[in-house]
Formats: sequence, C-alpha cells, structure tokens
Amino acid sequence: MNEAVPFLPEVAHQRAVFPDGLLLDSGATLAPLVVAYETYGTLDAARGNAVLVCHALTGDQYLAGRHPVTGRPGWWENIVGPGLPIDTDRFFVICANVLGGCMGSSGPREEMTDEEGNGLGRPYGTDFPSVTIRDMVRAQKRLVERLGITRLLAVIGGSMGGMQALQWAATYPEAVFACAPIATAAHHSAQNIAFHEVGRAAIHADPDWCGGAYWREGRLPAQGLSVARMVAHITYLSESALTRKFGRRLQGAKAVTFLEDVFAVESYLRHQGSTFIRRFDANSYLTITRAMDYFDLAAEFEGDLSRAFQGTPTRFFVASFSSDWLFPTAESRAITRALNRAAARTSFIEIASDKGHDAFLLDEPEFHAALGGFLRGAADAAGA
Amino acid sequence: MNEAVPFLPEVAHQRAVFPDGLLLDSGATLAPLVVAYETYGTLDAARGNAVLVCHALTGDQYLAGRHPVTGRPGWWENIVGPGLPIDTDRFFVICANVLGGCMGSSGPREEMTDEEGNGLGRPYGTDFPSVTIRDMVRAQKRLVERLGITRLLAVIGGSMGGMQALQWAATYPEAVFACAPIATAAHHSAQNIAFHEVGRAAIHADPDWCGGAYWREGRLPAQGLSVARMVAHITYLSESALTRKFGRRLQGAKAVTFLEDVFAVESYLRHQGSTFIRRFDANSYLTITRAMDYFDLAAEFEGDLSRAFQGTPTRFFVASFSSDWLFPTAESRAITRALNRAAARTSFIEIASDKGHDAFLLDEPEFHAALGGFLRGAADAAGA
Repeated sequence: MNEAVPFLPEVAHQRAVFPDGLLLDSGATLAPLVVAYETYGTLDAARGNAVLVCHALTGDQYLAGRHPVTGRPGWWENIVGPGLPIDTDRFFVICANVLGGCMGSSGPREEMTDEEGNGLGRPYGTDFPSVTIRDMVRAQKRLVERLGITRLLAVIGGSMGGMQALQWAATYPEAVFACAPIATAAHHSAQNIAFHEVGRAAIHADPDWCGGAYWREGRLPAQGLSVARMVAHITYLSESALTRKFGRRLQGAKAVTFLEDVFAVESYLRHQGSTFIRRFDANSYLTITRAMDYFDLAAEFEGDLSRAFQGTPTRFFVASFSSDWLFPTAESRAITRALNRAAARTSFIEIASDKGHDAFLLDEPEFHAALGGFLRGAADAAGA
Repeated sequence: MNEAVPFLPEVAHQRAVFPDGLLLDSGATLAPLVVAYETYGTLDAARGNAVLVCHALTGDQYLAGRHPVTGRPGWWENIVGPGLPIDTDRFFVICANVLGGCMGSSGPREEMTDEEGNGLGRPYGTDFPSVTIRDMVRAQKRLVERLGITRLLAVIGGSMGGMQALQWAATYPEAVFACAPIATAAHHSAQNIAFHEVGRAAIHADPDWCGGAYWREGRLPAQGLSVARMVAHITYLSESALTRKFGRRLQGAKAVTFLEDVFAVESYLRHQGSTFIRRFDANSYLTITRAMDYFDLAAEFEGDLSRAFQGTPTRFFVASFSSDWLFPTAESRAITRALNRAAARTSFIEIASDKGHDAFLLDEPEFHAALGGFLRGAADAAGA
C-alpha cells in the first residue's frame, strides 16, 4: 500500500436501501440497491416543495454544509441554502450520490452481493455492472418515492447533473413540474468521450490499478487517477480563465532558471490531481465516465430529441455559459430547439462568463438570479 | 525490456557536427553539437533559393519522401515537392531535426559527452540540458552557415515550427528574407502549458520511465508516452472534426452492449498513442514540450513583441485556421498587430477550416495557394 495515499475514509452516509434491487439498462440486476443522499430544508405537508439536485461526475450529495471527507464547503454552497437561489427556507432539497459513485450509493467500492443479495466480503471493483444515466435516474426515482414524494417541484443539475435532469423529464414527465438542465448536452460528444478515454487510459496504465483489484492488493492507482483529474480539470476551465488566473507566471520564482521551473498553472493542476485522489475512487471514475459516454437521449426516441418531450407538462430552464467549451452553448441550443419543437414551456439563457464549464459552480450573479427566478416562478405556479 | 515495444530503430541520418558545440540559453554548453537534417531540391549557384522548414513538436526532418522509421510519407508531402507550394523544382528546402529531438540531432537519446566532447557510452537521458526555441534556432543557424547560405529566402513553420520561424526573424533578421509563421503564437499559453503538463505527468507516472533512466533498465515508458500523445492529439483536432470523423459511432458494433464497448474515437486515439511510441523518445518529449512552454518572444524585448521586429527587412506571411483552438486565430492576430506596429511588410490570412490545429498539415487548398503565392512573390522579389 502506498502510505502517502490513504484509502477513502469510511463515512456513515444517510442511505435508503431497496432489497429488491434495480434492473439496469445492461440487463443486470443490482440488489440490494443502496442510494445515499442528503436533504436540506423541510418537506411541506403537501409534499409539493421537493427539489432534486443531480450532481456532476465528481460531485456528491454534500452540496451544502461541511463535506464529511474533505471538510470543505459543499459544492453548491453558494446556490443552496436559506435565502439563496435554491432557498432551503422554502424548498426541501434532495441530493443523492449517483449510482456507481463512491459516497455510499451502490458502486464499485461498496460490498459486492450474490444473487440473493448476500454480502461477499469484498467490494464490487470492476465487477460493478455498467450503468447509464437512466439507471442513475431510476435509482433516484426509487428514493423520491421512498420519501413519499409523487411529483418533484423541480429537478436541477449541471453537467452530468443536467443529463440526469433531462432524463428525469423524459422518463418521468408527470413527476417533474420544472426541469433545469445547466451547462449540459443531450448526448456526450466525440471530443468529450475522447477526453474521458485519456483519463481512463491513465488509470489503466497505472500498475497500482492492478486490473481494477487495487482494493485487494492494498494499493491505489493514485498517479493515474491524478492524471485523469488533471486533464479533466483543464476542460472545466476556459483558456481565458487560465490566462487570467495563471498566465505564464512561475511558481515561486520570477524568471526561468532552466532547472526546476514550475509554472503556476502546473502547480495548480498537480494540486487538483493530488487532492482528488483523497476523495474519489478510481473504479467509480471509470464507471461514471462511461455512463456519460453512453448518454444519448435522442437515441431512446428514434434519434429525434423532441420526441423525448412530446406533450410534456414540465417547464424548462436551459442555461449555458459563453466560455464553456466542454458543454458549449450550441448543445444547450440544440436542447432548446428540441423543447420548442415539442411545444414545451421553455426558457433559455446563455450567461456571459469567461470562467468556462466551472461557471455553473461559481459566483455568477446573473445565473443565480435567473435560476432563482425560474424556481420561484415554478413554485408559485405549482402552489408550493 | 517490454518485448512488445521495440526501442527506436537506429537510422543513419544526414548530420552536421560542430565540435565546438553550442552555448545554450541555460548557460550550459552542448559539445559537440550535432544537427541531423534533410534537404530537398538543389541549391542554386547564388545560394539564394534556400527555404528552411521548421518542424513541430513531434515532427522531424523527413517532410517529404518515405520516412526511414515509419515507412510512411513525410509530414508535409502535400506541400513540399516538385510543383507544390514549396516547389523543390525552384527551391532548396532544408529541414533539421530540432535540438532535443530524437531523429539524430543532439538530444536525450544521443550519446552523452564529457566536457572535452568524449563519448561516455550512454545516452544523455534526463542529463540532456534544458533547451529553448532560441537554442533550436541557433543550432539551425549553424547548419545553414555550414551549407554556405548567408540569407535564407524563407523560414517557414507551423505550430512549434512557427515559433522557430518567429525566433529566426527576431534573432537573425538579415538572414531571413521572408518568414511564414503558421498556426502558432508568440508565447505558449497557460492552457497549452497545462496540456503539456498532463502529458509529462503521464510519462513521469509510468514506472517504466525509471526516473528517466529507462534506457539503462531496458524499459520504455510506453503507456505514459501513449497517454501523453492521446491528450495532445485531441488538442490537434477540432470538436467538429472529431464529430464529423467519429461522432458517437462504436468500433465494430452497431449498438451499445455494456460489455466491451469501444467508441470509434477511442479506438482512433489509442492507435495514435500506440504508433507514436514506436517513433518518439519520452525524454525528447519532455525536453521539447518544456522548450515550447518557455517560449515567450516578447519577454526577450521588454514585453513588447513589436520590438522583436523593429526595423525588420523581413516580409511576413501569418496564417491561422478558424477551428484551431490550440493556437487560435487571436494569437496570430496578436503577432500581426506587433508586426504592423513595427511597420513590417505583413500579410495575414485566417483559413476557414473545421480541421483544427492539424489543418496546417492537411489538404487545405486555400492555405496551400496562399503560402505558395507568398513564397513565389518573395522569390521573385529576391531574384531567386
């Protein structure tokens, strides 16, 4: 075992367990199904004020408050809370760790079970089945039902969370009053699959990956996972954001020495890589990136995305960020066009920002105002 | 030694040897200096028809004809040859392997020498000194002098080759009648440094890199170098080119099976990685990417790029490609503005292309016509 890299700490997450399990798109059944989740705010008596937030690739259910592993603030701390755009004084916010994740939901690092659901005393590892965005959404639906909620006031998510939001609206239209897919796409592009494959290749190349059985060998593919995070992180930022934040500055030196020069941007990326490995599981990364690659909502509907929303009762808020090149505005426009063809109630906004894809996580007042306004309007219309 | 990955084959390159060596920007002296090169066409009696082509990061001196290692056509076969834009019926074309490269010029895989220039029976490896784009250009200048050429009719290069072309014009203005920096920039951006660092991290993470001494251990950091190539290759293409070429097609299957699905774009990238390691040295990759990162031409001139070209006699042809996001048009415009401020004779063209950075290597008729026209005009003006 690499002493410098501790295994992910065991944390007692809030979990819902479904012994009968979940039939997956692959044909496999995962039993029991475990969904780890957090809630914020209070469910009203009519059970009409529930907002489901779907997290991105490396996010988790801890969107506000202190993160139990990193000790840092939640990833949407600036959006979810009392008086914030997703106002926990008014709404009951649910966030579930995605299927295949590593924060307590059924995933590669959880204990594998046999066909009767008996624990086998080892994690799934690479024996965890392939999952899809639709599988993730099905698991969330079970959780929402368990909480006694028939219709969600809203499903909201950015990036992969936006894929889930779209899938929710397509699969369970009657259960989604309002839907906000943010900085996302209705399918994963060739370029994005390519970037994912680089990350996977880096993990596979790490001898500490051990063909996925690092858990058995007491090892961690830390360097491979770190490289995967580094390349992904570049895609989350815009060129102008990198230039503004780092430019060609050197770390700890004024001029090039031709010895151990490190540019500030390199130091930043290395830091991103080395902190990531303390909170994320490599096999989860492989599983979830694959689920994103598989995502192609139109393919479920004979290639016509508008059919996914035909006759939908849901109202939509589509948002993109001008400098996002991972999920560029053109992808959000394509979603909006499909919604318009389906005659769905739709608003679309492109936020001017130089912060790239990460803008959906950052301080973007225009975005926050627009999302908050959409949600308040939906709540008023729904009587929530 | 990894049997599946042969070491780079030994090839007898044409070389110029300079026993007195080269004083580098780092302060180190490299002796002897060896510059491996190829020439195409015939030098005229006045020695006035010489065109120096500078190659990109992973290019080499074999720009036309059969490559001695890969057996494939040269990398600029469609531009350099009889009747082509760089017409070898009229011009004497020189292309040198860059300093730090791995096709015969002084570099990490060549034999290390002591201070008297005596061979030490081992390659430089990571003991090869840091080099800069200016060092590469100085080495080329020595070669050009050795060939008896005082003034080059033109210096032409794309990507890192364009950096060298700019450096040539700035350092040796009297020796450059015409200069064509293509798909390049006057400094390496934070985003580009970041992508390079991902590649380097992947190489460093490969246990077969052996701290750079893989040559001693009979090993090759094939997986790390392959990952480096994969991520770099994504940056050479545009999103639309990847979508057009591959889209979401699966390799060898019509529908997702959730078993061993491979998207066509992944298969392509893996192939790029696995062929690259048969022709490129990992320590060369580290050395040359660092040289690109260091490149900041304005920094030599108190931060004012126009001073690099003050009073220049050289005529310039600046070209960019609309979908190139590695060296976007904005970078070429910045070069052009500096040339304009220096009152240099300058033409700038942005070629509409969806092929990304790689467009400078591909079949782009408008680019070929413009470059050919520029070169013929320069030759006519120079009486060559």
